Amino acid sequence: MSQKFDVIVVGAGPGGYVAAIRAAQLGLKTACVEKWVDDKGAAVLGGTCLNVGCIPSKALLESTHQFHKAQHADVHGIQTGDVSMDVKAMVARKNKIVGNLTGGIGGLFKANGVTVLQGMGKLLANKQVEVTAADGTAAVYDAENVILASGSVPVNIPPAPLTDGLILDNAGALDIDEIPERLGVIGAGVIGLEMGSVWARLGTKVTVLEAMDDFLAAADKDVARDAAKLFKKQNLDIQLGARVTGTEIVDGKEVKVKFTDSKGEQEITVDKLIVAVGRKPQTNGLLSEDSGVQLDERGFIFVDEQCRTGAPGVYAIGDSVRGPMLAHKASEEGIMVADIIAGHKAQMNYDVIPSIIYTHPELAWVGKTEQELKADGVKIKVGKFPFAASGRAMAADDTDGFVKMIACEETDRILGVHMVGGIASELIAQAAIAMEFCSSAEDLQLTVFAHPTVSEAVHEAALAVDGHAIHIANRKKR
Amino acid sequence: MSQKFDVIVVGAGPGGYVAAIRAAQLGLKTACVEKWVDDKGAAVLGGTCLNVGCIPSKALLESTHQFHKAQHADVHGIQTGDVSMDVKAMVARKNKIVGNLTGGIGGLFKANGVTVLQGMGKLLANKQVEVTAADGTAAVYDAENVILASGSVPVNIPPAPLTDGLILDNAGALDIDEIPERLGVIGAGVIGLEMGSVWARLGTKVTVLEAMDDFLAAADKDVARDAAKLFKKQNLDIQLGARVTGTEIVDGKEVKVKFTDSKGEQEITVDKLIVAVGRKPQTNGLLSEDSGVQLDERGFIFVDEQCRTGAPGVYAIGDSVRGPMLAHKASEEGIMVADIIAGHKAQMNYDVIPSIIYTHPELAWVGKTEQELKADGVKIKVGKFPFAASGRAMAADDTDGFVKMIACEETDRILGVHMVGGIASELIAQAAIAMEFCSSAEDLQLTVFAHPTVSEAVHEAALAVDGHAIHIANRKKR
Repeated sequence: MSQKFDVIVVGAGPGGYVAAIRAAQLGLKTACVEKWVDDKGAAVLGGTCLNVGCIPSKALLESTHQFHKAQHADVHGIQTGDVSMDVKAMVARKNKIVGNLTGGIGGLFKANGVTVLQGMGKLLANKQVEVTAADGTAAVYDAENVILASGSVPVNIPPAPLTDGLILDNAGALDIDEIPERLGVIGAGVIGLEMGSVWARLGTKVTVLEAMDDFLAAADKDVARDAAKLFKKQNLDIQLGARVTGTEIVDGKEVKVKFTDSKGEQEITVDKLIVAVGRKPQTNGLLSEDSGVQLDERGFIFVDEQCRTGAPGVYAIGDSVRGPMLAHKASEEGIMVADIIAGHKAQMNYDVIPSIIYTHPELAWVGKTEQELKADGVKIKVGKFPFAASGRAMAADDTDGFVKMIACEETDRILGVHMVGGIASELIAQAAIAMEFCSSAEDLQLTVFAHPTVSEAVHEAALAVDGHAIHIANRKKR
Repeated sequence: MSQKFDVIVVGAGPGGYVAAIRAAQLGLKTACVEKWVDDKGAAVLGGTCLNVGCIPSKALLESTHQFHKAQHADVHGIQTGDVSMDVKAMVARKNKIVGNLTGGIGGLFKANGVTVLQGMGKLLANKQVEVTAADGTAAVYDAENVILASGSVPVNIPPAPLTDGLILDNAGALDIDEIPERLGVIGAGVIGLEMGSVWARLGTKVTVLEAMDDFLAAADKDVARDAAKLFKKQNLDIQLGARVTGTEIVDGKEVKVKFTDSKGEQEITVDKLIVAVGRKPQTNGLLSEDSGVQLDERGFIFVDEQCRTGAPGVYAIGDSVRGPMLAHKASEEGIMVADIIAGHKAQMNYDVIPSIIYTHPELAWVGKTEQELKADGVKIKVGKFPFAASGRAMAADDTDGFVKMIACEETDRILGVHMVGGIASELIAQAAIAMEFCSSAEDLQLTVFAHPTVSEAVHEAALAVDGHAIHIANRKKR
């Protein structure tokens, strides 16, 4: 059997499904291959992000944040009685949201005319794709263009092998259905901090073991420093330079975790251990030997700036190629590639991709850090504005954090914006839009921001770049 | 006694205090006159906005929104006892926030070297300002430049004269300290809807009487229609075409309100009545006959595009001049005028001033409505994206509303963005920034928005302008 498509997308995560929808919108006959199946054998769409990543984690973060707010509602004069969490109901809500969204993608595929091919996709030579269904039957499809969007998988580490109900990866961590007394997390990255926050809010004693000596090494140091202080107040015990050397299951119900740090051998015992040390590209079984697609030295599919692999007509996007492992980066690459295939000119600006960590306060940034710019020898001006000086943040009882804006000393162009704040995840889009227009700090100074909004902190940070913030006493002029 | 300043600002509201700080930052010797005094005779800074406007209303809105969320926390699996509101504590929190902020302005004046002149300011000829203190003593100051920022006062209507504790204006409405059973509001504008929301959330039966036949006539019709539906669900009984003809205090404890509507004479009885029919410029006693400053036919101080009055060296800003009565418009005019006085080139873009109503969901817009553009004969493209299709909004259990983007059919330039949504007040800044750069819809289509954020709805609305939204089935191509 052979059926020919203009575009076959392998993988229905946020890279693949967006690429498929865009391609279909542009009039291309499009199929999307997905190996993940539900218990009825139907393809599960949405990939890691929707099923076991961004969305379910945000559902749990929201529920536990609301729990925290209910517990502290007396600040508003609200009396509640005892506040408790029915964790199974919380997880059920999360599952319902995930189900709605993944089901929604099926609907979008139908509306746009995208064909779903259930099975494991493998790229053969000459832009053929072999699809092996869950029942083992295989079919080969021809395509004018192939987009590989196979995503990534969690990295497992030998000292902490996954163990049902006890040692968990990001997926397992989302289904813990009662409040553990003690939780260990290996890795103080996005997943570790978010999952640590979820359980710390519910009263779990959380210990995060981070192998590196620096906390949030990728973030601007001001962000990392402020975040570390705030997390400490939230009873997240983050241990740096802590290398896990082994784990032991005790009585089948708790986990002894051994690690070394600057003080020597250490040991903690926890009820659950989450391994969140990173992710690696998923390329197992994806490429036949003669596919013409190469991997780079780190195991990513090798692509150029416009996501072309070495095989003509074959593209790769998302977590399986270079660049940050972020859903929105994958989606935008998907749109770019679909546009290119449809004959349009397209490219994306890799310099303006926001990053977010959804703790509370949230951490968000776009562009370069002060440290990166200084290392590059760029002369910069820095403006900083704390949410504690924002009337709206006061009204919302959410005054932790700040907006930090970095502009070029010479040109005034904004080079990076870094935030810690209650809704930093939403404010960062303002910085991204401005930077996409190569905005100067002055451009934002001259823009009217509505009052009272926490967004005014972005305005004030822009003003502070030149020592002209209104609502804080500015530092002496440089 | 005579003392000379480079700049005397009359009024310490969000127009005046910002102008004064900016002027001082630019090296000008600056004074700010404020007539409002506290019970110790000290000047109360911050004007209507901080004391009895934007900030206290947002504090009450936040507290009652949290009350609503605590009452409905079971959606997250959160169990509470009975939820009740200690209104006196809620009002005390509001007062504390107001106190912190207004006190903060005193600190900022000190840090920037702005002199506070307590008293009623009156502009004389030749840029002299007479300041009459609360104790009746008067002094005259000379200035190189004067900025009039005297603000506005609520409009009172004869059929509903203010009556202590029963018939209230915006200031009185903020200090109601127990939950009224029945509340009447005259006027379905910003203040009426916000105060109505506060009390409806706490269980009050709220009736809003709006004289006009159209609801939210200034808003895009899609916003007004959606908002009307949502407010109805929130038990805000909004009666349109309802003209209040008289009020009567019954037994000194309730108010009978008579009004006429399309069905004839009507009557309701309420425990409190809030009059929120609008505001008018405050110019009483502000100008001597020979000041050289004129009023326009509507009682506003007449100014040009850069806020110059007819008297050389005298400027006026904020609610007392033409344009929307918004704190941020006043502040930006203050900055513009200070810059002009300091010899810089400055102007502001009156076409890009966001408007917000802080109900829940919030209503926010910037630029022109679909109806205005069609009346102007502009050919437009419209993209709309509902928050119900946003993963982050689902996670936040906050899916009401939409983002509507309007672009020019010919040039693709964004001409208006209109929103109903949980944090529309913060998202609207994205539209304002883009429009300040004369962004096309395509420019925003090509910008990377972080996932998962509700901001993605702005991205999707931009995509929808060209029928390319990803997460909704687009309408047929035009």
